[in-house]
Amino acid sequence: MSTNNSVSAVLAHVDRELESSLERLFTLLRIQSISTDPAYTAECRKAAEHVAAELGSFGFETSLRSTAGHPVVIGKGGKSGNGAHPTPRVLFYGHYDVQPVDPLDLWQTPPFEPRIATLENGRKIIVARGACDDKGQAMTFIEACRAFKAVTGKLPLDITIMIEGEEECGSKHLFGFVRDNAPEFRRDLALVCDTGMWDTETPSITTSLRGLVYEEVRLTCADRDLHSGLFGGAARNPIHVLSEVLSALHRADGSVAIPGFYDGVPELPADIKADLARLDLTPEKFLTPIGLKIPAGEKDRMLIEQISTRPTAEVNGIISGYTGEGAKTVIPGKAMAKVSFRLVGTQDPEKIRLAFRDFVRARMPADCSVEFGNFTSASAFSVAFDNPALTKAREALAQEWGKKAVTVGAGGSIPIVSDFKTVLGMDTVMVGFALDDDRVHSPNEKYDLNSFHKGIRSWVRILAALAA
Amino acid sequence: MSTNNSVSAVLAHVDRELESSLERLFTLLRIQSISTDPAYTAECRKAAEHVAAELGSFGFETSLRSTAGHPVVIGKGGKSGNGAHPTPRVLFYGHYDVQPVDPLDLWQTPPFEPRIATLENGRKIIVARGACDDKGQAMTFIEACRAFKAVTGKLPLDITIMIEGEEECGSKHLFGFVRDNAPEFRRDLALVCDTGMWDTETPSITTSLRGLVYEEVRLTCADRDLHSGLFGGAARNPIHVLSEVLSALHRADGSVAIPGFYDGVPELPADIKADLARLDLTPEKFLTPIGLKIPAGEKDRMLIEQISTRPTAEVNGIISGYTGEGAKTVIPGKAMAKVSFRLVGTQDPEKIRLAFRDFVRARMPADCSVEFGNFTSASAFSVAFDNPALTKAREALAQEWGKKAVTVGAGGSIPIVSDFKTVLGMDTVMVGFALDDDRVHSPNEKYDLNSFHKGIRSWVRILAALAA
Repeated sequence: MSTNNSVSAVLAHVDRELESSLERLFTLLRIQSISTDPAYTAECRKAAEHVAAELGSFGFETSLRSTAGHPVVIGKGGKSGNGAHPTPRVLFYGHYDVQPVDPLDLWQTPPFEPRIATLENGRKIIVARGACDDKGQAMTFIEACRAFKAVTGKLPLDITIMIEGEEECGSKHLFGFVRDNAPEFRRDLALVCDTGMWDTETPSITTSLRGLVYEEVRLTCADRDLHSGLFGGAARNPIHVLSEVLSALHRADGSVAIPGFYDGVPELPADIKADLARLDLTPEKFLTPIGLKIPAGEKDRMLIEQISTRPTAEVNGIISGYTGEGAKTVIPGKAMAKVSFRLVGTQDPEKIRLAFRDFVRARMPADCSVEFGNFTSASAFSVAFDNPALTKAREALAQEWGKKAVTVGAGGSIPIVSDFKTVLGMDTVMVGFALDDDRVHSPNEKYDLNSFHKGIRSWVRILAALAA
Repeated sequence: MSTNNSVSAVLAHVDRELESSLERLFTLLRIQSISTDPAYTAECRKAAEHVAAELGSFGFETSLRSTAGHPVVIGKGGKSGNGAHPTPRVLFYGHYDVQPVDPLDLWQTPPFEPRIATLENGRKIIVARGACDDKGQAMTFIEACRAFKAVTGKLPLDITIMIEGEEECGSKHLFGFVRDNAPEFRRDLALVCDTGMWDTETPSITTSLRGLVYEEVRLTCADRDLHSGLFGGAARNPIHVLSEVLSALHRADGSVAIPGFYDGVPELPADIKADLARLDLTPEKFLTPIGLKIPAGEKDRMLIEQISTRPTAEVNGIISGYTGEGAKTVIPGKAMAKVSFRLVGTQDPEKIRLAFRDFVRARMPADCSVEFGNFTSASAFSVAFDNPALTKAREALAQEWGKKAVTVGAGGSIPIVSDFKTVLGMDTVMVGFALDDDRVHSPNEKYDLNSFHKGIRSWVRILAALAA
């Protein structure tokens, strides 16, 4: 068969076999693999074993790899017998663990009893914990592989599948696992299915994830709390000092005032920027649902840039002095704030951490001392807009959905993707089919049947395109 | 006897009878009149009855006046039989209640077993809860009255004594009591013995008390807490807004930036200012003991002005977002701060409250709302520097202590003194003999024997001077 013919055949197989694909997904959804709760440790192992058996059933060489936490499922397939291999070799990453289900009473049906429901607008949805995040999404890739194997007798590429069990509790053992086994997992490209579509009709590839620097700032002025009647007017108040520092973080135009902060922040290519502008993400659409009106970031940037491709500084918490009911006339001795920075491009987390500390220290009066704590320093990740795999994936998605695939930056970070880049030197193409109303992490999580079905079809096209 | 002769005789009597005066104080100190703790209600009544009996024992007409809380002791004496009365008629205010004694294990001896101790420098001290605040101080006045009666057979003035039992829990029932009985307590002058000396050698009269406006500010931006990865850069952060407001409260020169804030703030007379300058209150003396170095108030004011005769703005508490251990990437929906103002002169608490609210509202973005709560609005109190009673009291103190008596402003407020002025139209002269190391409100509270002895003598001289 020609490639085009084989793709058509595989897609037809996907359509015919949708019911069986769904049954396999439902079996996985019935396993209560809540990773954060030790009560579900056995269920997590069960899920891992199930995924391994699933992959093994159509030819993957599988293993469960121990970590200090839940095991990682590794499946390897598509390697040719003679040692040569079709390129690119890909590593697919997903996770079999799910979020806790509380509050249980808000679920319309039990979270681990998956069902198909029909929305008022006619959309069919799969309802269950993990229906989307990430069991449903990961299964789109696995089912695409299965269909290839069923129709063509082989996988189109050398594919390593890594399905971990601790994503919902911070992937804390995966980083070390990947580092310790770098040669084994260093492939030409990573694929992830844990992100979303722009809307129900517009496919999307996530091309950047913001990095994160998270700092705690602790000020000390007087060595005790003081009575404002006795000392008020002469004693340094750490809340005043902290307010000065925090209000100096941003300029009037919304930009971050720390010297050197924007070093390494790239400008978007004009075509990508035009694509983003056409998405027309208005304050009404984005901010009204959360009770806000006015984009608060850099004034010369589109809202979609502010939340995805621009760096930020946010104060995440602050506490000092008396915060209970009523009045207490105290001048506190100490004040604390938590401040974090979302990073993009090649901004250096360590450089920004130090620049922030200098910025704070420069604003300390001589009788005020400051201590810092660091909780996170993670680089941003981005894939070049002209990466050939990205281009192929965009074209494949456009064929499947009948609409140009947009590239977007995600505001948050998926640290393992940064590690794939920094430790394994490997780019990641993030394609996902989640929708904004999927209630990920919330009661009544769902995944559109269309996302599942066309998701499988999308991966068939992407794998074929990458192999071409 | 001439006045001078009679004063000398009374003073000699005070010296001779010091042991009996001390015994009477010790009896009062043994009563566990902790007003905030309902477990000590009977002890509070016992203290009130004891004080009343004490006053009655040398001719005061006494009564225990009920309030919704602990009773107020009223004693009336010195009224001439024919309805005429020597002027000024005075109202003396003090309190028989004391602070709780926790932490009990830090007391070297039990708090309600008064004793005389000798410090390394030879100073003798009375150690007990209430030794200074206010049993010891109030007893200096009562013992002076007793000595007058013993030597001259009468009081030198028409004296009403009001000893309340709730000062340590906010005098909350005294305000209404005074207002409801205004004609009874409206005298020419009030006297209070609940303040301190400048140092062990320098007598002091407190001529002003700062007022207080205490506000709570509650901001709301988004209607929920947001994930900074998804919304960071576009969503308004209430900590940022609050920091802007709080850092705008003060100008670079340390002054308060609220429009109209300084309306009604008087300049000190040159001679009073010179007196204050001579006290030489240096940052080393005042700030070093609490771990600070640099006076943080108005740069063009002496430290002693900053803490006593100038108005202030202080943030007493702030809280928002995540304040626990580690990192949480939240953009909070709400933020709260408590802000208070110490007032002087004729600053109008209500006007300042409203000006502050306008100041905050003017800095609110259109999608940020603010609510306020008010806990205190109390005017400042001050007695005119040329008040004749003040002049007489200063001269009497100078005679007793052999050193000019300074006038100082107290940084905190004693609200009942404001009420004496606003409700009864009566000035208060505050003379006290407490010292900075008296450990008022703390374990091992003490009162110098010299403060007690010369305190009694001081009141003898002041009463004689006022009667002259």
